[in-house]
Amino acid sequence: MAHINVPDGVPGIRSLVMYRPDTGKHLYDLAHVLLREPSPLTPAERELIAAYVSSRNNCIFCMSSHAAAARELYRDDRHVVDCVIGNLDEAPVSDKMKALLNIAGKVQRNGKEVTTDDILKAQQYGAEDRDIHDTVLIAAAFSMFNRYVDGLATLTPTDPKVYEEMGRRMTTIGYVLPQPAK
Amino acid sequence: MAHINVPDGVPGIRSLVMYRPDTGKHLYDLAHVLLREPSPLTPAERELIAAYVSSRNNCIFCMSSHAAAARELYRDDRHVVDCVIGNLDEAPVSDKMKALLNIAGKVQRNGKEVTTDDILKAQQYGAEDRDIHDTVLIAAAFSMFNRYVDGLATLTPTDPKVYEEMGRRMTTIGYVLPQPAK
Repeated sequence: MAHINVPDGVPGIRSLVMYRPDTGKHLYDLAHVLLREPSPLTPAERELIAAYVSSRNNCIFCMSSHAAAARELYRDDRHVVDCVIGNLDEAPVSDKMKALLNIAGKVQRNGKEVTTDDILKAQQYGAEDRDIHDTVLIAAAFSMFNRYVDGLATLTPTDPKVYEEMGRRMTTIGYVLPQPAK
Repeated sequence: MAHINVPDGVPGIRSLVMYRPDTGKHLYDLAHVLLREPSPLTPAERELIAAYVSSRNNCIFCMSSHAAAARELYRDDRHVVDCVIGNLDEAPVSDKMKALLNIAGKVQRNGKEVTTDDILKAQQYGAEDRDIHDTVLIAAAFSMFNRYVDGLATLTPTDPKVYEEMGRRMTTIGYVLPQPAK
């Protein structure tokens, strides 16, 4: 049971944005701009960063839903998502993506852990300022979403099919604020 | 020097929202609603939570600026801010505020650390759902802001007077997006 009185049966962040839509609106708008609007990183890569950071925070709701969205977007390469979450070093992603995910992993612990060498390595593999900026902000934003969802003990579904459905919704409808509770 | 090419001489998050205003807008709007719009917690208490979480993340820019804003808002009780940052257990704040700051400190580490006992204790001292919700979301949001600012190694002024000036601006003008870089 959640720590506060949110709508029954509504999972994760959706229950929280229904509880307080005036903050929820900005949270959803941020997620939409960051994960769907133009960026040198594809939506698949951005959802992968979100799932990776959420897995490192052990936030089952965010990890499962964003991993499902990333699998939808990677289509025939959907196994990439589980490889990255399982073992980044061995995962079949580009060196650039690996360097960016390394930066995201450091941001997940503490922003100060990102070194000039981490940045130089990403640049060496072709990352430009916007790749680095968007990676850091996605990792930072999911450090927030994960804490919001878990800090209030929101409902975390256990059926993988629920997340598959969420992943499909997130890649079609996107991040749209649900109707507030009556 | 920052890890990416942000406007020269502009400190902390301001340099980042000038770099990417379309995400910056939602970040500032979120900060404004969360720290200034109606809540059972006063703006002083909310700035205090922001400063406390930032101090625990060792984010000097966010801690110094939000501590300065909190001092402005606490007026004659401005010493409260440094007491809380220095030693929460001995700080001259209410039992309710101490219980909420304890929850914020747990969210700063990981949302899952917040227990039912932490919530019951806050409720016993008069905290209602909105107090708990807003505390958790402020702590989560500053877990993001801190990582964003430090993960990109933005400019951190060292002169306390710069933060005093920021604190005054934050308590009068509020969170207003600076003009984007030309």
